[in-house]
Amino acid sequence: MSARRGDRTLCGGIDLGGTKIQAAIVGDDGKVVGDARRATPVSGGPDGVAEQMAEALVEAGTMAGVEPTDLGGVGVGAPGTVDKDGAVSSAANLPDWDGSFPLAEHLSSALDTGVRVGNDVQVATDAEARLGAGRPYKSLLGVFWGTGVGGGLVLDDKPWLGLGAAGEIGHMVVKLGGKRCPCGRRGCMEAYAGRAAMEATARREHDKGEHTDLFKIMEKRGHDRLKSSVWEHALEQGDSMAEKLIGRAVEAIGAAVASAVNLLDVEAVIIGGGIGVRLGEPYVKKIERRMLKNLIVDERPPAFHVASLGDFGGAIGASLLWRPAPES
Amino acid sequence: MSARRGDRTLCGGIDLGGTKIQAAIVGDDGKVVGDARRATPVSGGPDGVAEQMAEALVEAGTMAGVEPTDLGGVGVGAPGTVDKDGAVSSAANLPDWDGSFPLAEHLSSALDTGVRVGNDVQVATDAEARLGAGRPYKSLLGVFWGTGVGGGLVLDDKPWLGLGAAGEIGHMVVKLGGKRCPCGRRGCMEAYAGRAAMEATARREHDKGEHTDLFKIMEKRGHDRLKSSVWEHALEQGDSMAEKLIGRAVEAIGAAVASAVNLLDVEAVIIGGGIGVRLGEPYVKKIERRMLKNLIVDERPPAFHVASLGDFGGAIGASLLWRPAPES
Repeated sequence: MSARRGDRTLCGGIDLGGTKIQAAIVGDDGKVVGDARRATPVSGGPDGVAEQMAEALVEAGTMAGVEPTDLGGVGVGAPGTVDKDGAVSSAANLPDWDGSFPLAEHLSSALDTGVRVGNDVQVATDAEARLGAGRPYKSLLGVFWGTGVGGGLVLDDKPWLGLGAAGEIGHMVVKLGGKRCPCGRRGCMEAYAGRAAMEATARREHDKGEHTDLFKIMEKRGHDRLKSSVWEHALEQGDSMAEKLIGRAVEAIGAAVASAVNLLDVEAVIIGGGIGVRLGEPYVKKIERRMLKNLIVDERPPAFHVASLGDFGGAIGASLLWRPAPES
Repeated sequence: MSARRGDRTLCGGIDLGGTKIQAAIVGDDGKVVGDARRATPVSGGPDGVAEQMAEALVEAGTMAGVEPTDLGGVGVGAPGTVDKDGAVSSAANLPDWDGSFPLAEHLSSALDTGVRVGNDVQVATDAEARLGAGRPYKSLLGVFWGTGVGGGLVLDDKPWLGLGAAGEIGHMVVKLGGKRCPCGRRGCMEAYAGRAAMEATARREHDKGEHTDLFKIMEKRGHDRLKSSVWEHALEQGDSMAEKLIGRAVEAIGAAVASAVNLLDVEAVIIGGGIGVRLGEPYVKKIERRMLKNLIVDERPPAFHVASLGDFGGAIGASLLWRPAPES
């Protein structure tokens, strides 16, 4: 692998999440040739996070036999708002990340190579479009169903960012005057479908005396929150509250996807994210069926797929920031 | 004006609506130099409609001093689904328009000039983007609030059509399990905001004994349906049912626009259509305020404007099918 040194066909990608940092060294065919993972530090603020990101990237490089300076560049997928210079703000899931932090500048000087920063969900969507389940399509909607519900758009083979913050499918309104969302607004799709919102609802109903095994399963598996695997096991056991809440989530996602497809008439919808991938094909089918009820051009519905790049999708997508899509 | 003969700087535009056909001869600056109007024939099917369209265009040409063969081409904005060859189908508002009718081919041979056909709402949006209220912006959403609620998108200075049917903002879901829409689905924005749906609701509530002057105003003005002017007068008189139903419409449009902007992060929203233009600025402000409640990036909301091209917007937009947007 050291033969690749300096030929710049390798790029780095880092997926920055609220709990973990995933770094990868990626070939121009999208193959991961080195990877490393770190926990996102809970203290030390943006400087501490950037330091762990740099270390993870160097470690992934060591596995691939390259130094950061040998790479074509390093891409980062970050939560929150990313400006043109690679500064990151409004990253509510990252510890002590107040105001705007010049992440690209910081990492670039730490790694001595070029760094580009994009939105985490958008780069994951781009990865699915160019290398994953979305490859056959020129336009698609990516829906990442996890703690929240994020979205990304590829239109005419190019990522669509709008003024920088496009893709907020989780905050499309599915119910006027409906449930309060973790974002503070009412009736957002995420208020029904996000894992954080579903956990809050489950706790409230459990405290009120409604039966569920969700929290027993959580404790048995040594978790302190309702991870995707907990929901999966509860569904397998036929837990009625899990069925009810996941049913509502499917309804909300289906309605929001119908709204998005009615507005954009894209060719395909890719469902990813922690819960999306964990529950997989059968639940993607349920979302598709619910969507059809509100789809206006229902004689040619969009194709539905589960995201196919798995855990590395975010890091691979970040590396694509150095491989612009061909002009169409 | 006859000096322009044959120099091809003039194009024709025809806006085909359910009640009227508006033809215009349009200069390359967007100025209308000739116009004519016909009632959409209620019998005779697509052939009869095409004949009236051709006659209207010839009459508009006479006013401008040009023959159809002197024009750079003729564009048509049609309701329903338009395919690449200019055939129109699913035009539910047009009489006896069953199946697909080759409108471009038909008109082209009648007028002996090139004919292109686009979706009526999309061409009106394009007109606002290039010549009207949307000129300062590269990306915008057009919302045409009338009998139904149609939408159009301009992204990166180009119309976004998706697979051909993008822009159906009226059928975005604003209320899971909500009101039945004239399209048959549940919870669509148009079920609350479309003039046809509002009229049906008003009639039902009036028949049940709820007070309103809407139908008295309608009769006094010699109409047989609740036209935009009827709603306007009822609002001016403080009619409580008109206030309630228009209030709900504003809420539904505001929520759907918030959903669309959260997804696309466009720079501007243009509100047009029969009711939109009639109620104008004060109601556009109300829609904007309602939208802000569900806007996720609320520190930089999109600009809101009333459509500025008036009655000729559709015909002008249709003529633009012969003036492609400059490459960005």
